[in-house]
Amino acid sequence: MNQMCVATYRCYDDKADFDKKALSIAVGLTVGSWTDLPEAKKAEMEKHLGKVVSVSVHEPAGAAPGERYADLKIAYPDLNYSRDLPALLVTVFGKLSMDGKIKLMDLQFSDEFLSAFPGPKFGVQGIRDLLGVHDRPLLMSIFKSVVGHDLVNLQEQFYQQALGGVDLIKDDEILFENPLTPIDKRVEVCMEAARRAQEQTGQKLLYAVNVTGPTSGLAAQAKKAIAAGANAILFNVLSYGFDALHELSKDPEISVPIAAHPAMAGAIYPSPHYGIAAPLLLGKLMRVAGADLSLFPSPYGSVVMPKEENLAVKAALLDPSLPVRTSFPVPSAGIHPGIVPLILKDFGQEVVVNAGGGIHGHPMGTAAGGQAFREAMRAVAAGETLQDAAARHEALRIATELWGIKQ
Amino acid sequence: MNQMCVATYRCYDDKADFDKKALSIAVGLTVGSWTDLPEAKKAEMEKHLGKVVSVSVHEPAGAAPGERYADLKIAYPDLNYSRDLPALLVTVFGKLSMDGKIKLMDLQFSDEFLSAFPGPKFGVQGIRDLLGVHDRPLLMSIFKSVVGHDLVNLQEQFYQQALGGVDLIKDDEILFENPLTPIDKRVEVCMEAARRAQEQTGQKLLYAVNVTGPTSGLAAQAKKAIAAGANAILFNVLSYGFDALHELSKDPEISVPIAAHPAMAGAIYPSPHYGIAAPLLLGKLMRVAGADLSLFPSPYGSVVMPKEENLAVKAALLDPSLPVRTSFPVPSAGIHPGIVPLILKDFGQEVVVNAGGGIHGHPMGTAAGGQAFREAMRAVAAGETLQDAAARHEALRIATELWGIKQ
Repeated sequence: MNQMCVATYRCYDDKADFDKKALSIAVGLTVGSWTDLPEAKKAEMEKHLGKVVSVSVHEPAGAAPGERYADLKIAYPDLNYSRDLPALLVTVFGKLSMDGKIKLMDLQFSDEFLSAFPGPKFGVQGIRDLLGVHDRPLLMSIFKSVVGHDLVNLQEQFYQQALGGVDLIKDDEILFENPLTPIDKRVEVCMEAARRAQEQTGQKLLYAVNVTGPTSGLAAQAKKAIAAGANAILFNVLSYGFDALHELSKDPEISVPIAAHPAMAGAIYPSPHYGIAAPLLLGKLMRVAGADLSLFPSPYGSVVMPKEENLAVKAALLDPSLPVRTSFPVPSAGIHPGIVPLILKDFGQEVVVNAGGGIHGHPMGTAAGGQAFREAMRAVAAGETLQDAAARHEALRIATELWGIKQ
Repeated sequence: MNQMCVATYRCYDDKADFDKKALSIAVGLTVGSWTDLPEAKKAEMEKHLGKVVSVSVHEPAGAAPGERYADLKIAYPDLNYSRDLPALLVTVFGKLSMDGKIKLMDLQFSDEFLSAFPGPKFGVQGIRDLLGVHDRPLLMSIFKSVVGHDLVNLQEQFYQQALGGVDLIKDDEILFENPLTPIDKRVEVCMEAARRAQEQTGQKLLYAVNVTGPTSGLAAQAKKAIAAGANAILFNVLSYGFDALHELSKDPEISVPIAAHPAMAGAIYPSPHYGIAAPLLLGKLMRVAGADLSLFPSPYGSVVMPKEENLAVKAALLDPSLPVRTSFPVPSAGIHPGIVPLILKDFGQEVVVNAGGGIHGHPMGTAAGGQAFREAMRAVAAGETLQDAAARHEALRIATELWGIKQ
């Protein structure tokens, strides 16, 4: 049986015959030409021919110039590409990406294509199992500043974060291999701080260390970090391509969760006319390529993504119809304890609350910053208002006085 | 001495204080915070601090909403990132890419950073030396259709193209590793056709075979092709990242020119508000990462790029101030023999004229299609009009009757 992957495009054009355009894509990006082929050749090539699945034109009465668009769905036979994401993406959006105002909105993978993708090694459930936390959202924090700091400083930053009761700590994505804090030394001192903090908090945590450098050395870099004790990695996926994530993820020796950072994603998803839609770029593709956690801009901060798009990213990461493990959504930026009720309303339980300034900026210090978040999460779970909880919890009270409460 | 790379951004905002924004980028993407640091710490961190080079606000009187923008130049200390393009790109445009309407327009590399990049192994001069052609633009052709075709068919397509006197033949970028035409077999039959054609034309040619598949297998795939006789490779750079190109290019065993295909580039360069400008994406970055030839959409066809942007891509590929070899500009799409005078006017001699339909669509066949191009190129070099040349050359006459002449 000839399986196909289906691409959905949004294509803006004031005048185009969208049916004709869809047909020209289906033919042009597969067999090249069709109507002028001899019948015998057609019979032979039929199995390679793309198919127009649907064309849905949006042309409101009185549409202003620039507002007319169509959603085109085109199916591409699996026979035409190898079982890797670069091949599929180049097939469906290689040349086509440069053909006017057209944005890749979604991809539906065939079972056959998907069978090459084990997906996240841990996913939501696996990360919960590692941490032993099953009854609440998770809390992640990021370093306050890393560039130019030494091991002693990073270790102390780590320790204070860990004391606050966070479940995950991630490197800054701009911390590369460097002489002050090389990856193996950084992992050693931070994991030592994690052990010290655990004696006080009784709580496990994951440290996602940033794996960087030459493409061919990424796996070795990850393994070096793991040998030094790393129990998670952070990866700037889009500067290396989805296949690099896929290869790290399916490597049996890389036996820790991978957090996908969205660095560079803003070059690709925000335009209405060009690029790849966020739910596909930061949702479905990250998950299929093996991200256990996917970070993306929250709708709450200065680096914003519209809430509808944000929830669509989340939905793609958790969609039960995809036969790979789910990935933890990590909406990031602009998060403080007073936003916790809103995040949990928007995202539910399966979310990682990720904070930087909202933890380090706490007037009582970093550890108190984490504790304020944990208390806010506890309050929401118990059906309490933050106001009530804050009245009994000093760190939360001070945080909400500083940053306010949104719910 | 502390060297820095400088990023230029175009940032649209109707109200922003652009000086403040520039400062927040320079600090935020390097040391994280500055004004609240103790003086002793400042002295220590100074060498890691980003610097605002310039802020140039464009705010024409009576500007409509959405028209106000500024060009910001920010310098980033080399100390902060490793000597690879993912690290530099994530530093200057990782998180920032998601921060409103901001587009990365240019990067100036420090000497120190550039020293890690040997650039193209052949470049314009090296490719001319390989072909023994120094006095005219080059001619490239692409297969008519490849998906679903067998070795016999590809070989015959190749032979007809070669007979037309083209200098380079490139695979279609959507031809991946497949059972009908695996890379080594494809190279063998096509290079055999090249030898047969050379007996008739007396002319060398390069066959750029498409290197695809898993990231960790790219170098092996390229070497397999070279072992089978390939004398050039084609690479879909943007689906793997610039570092993958860099690694292929600097590998001493990959001893053939690399043609960079712009597949997926339309997801990144066309928006005025987001992404990476084409002259940087398809010009400077491709060259620094080691592309001997860089393909990009011509201003002549249906897949268009404005001519000003097109010439800026060309300028970046040929810019003599960059201390690496120059890369051949390959403007592609919508090219027929009647456009040759215009291409050569726009691009000069250092260009590869790249045609698909303009060769295969010739009424006298593919070989005549190539010959019409070569005759058009000869005429322009001799200062003849195409009309005069066509009067004496049947293939050119028929091509110009079919497609017309632009000059």
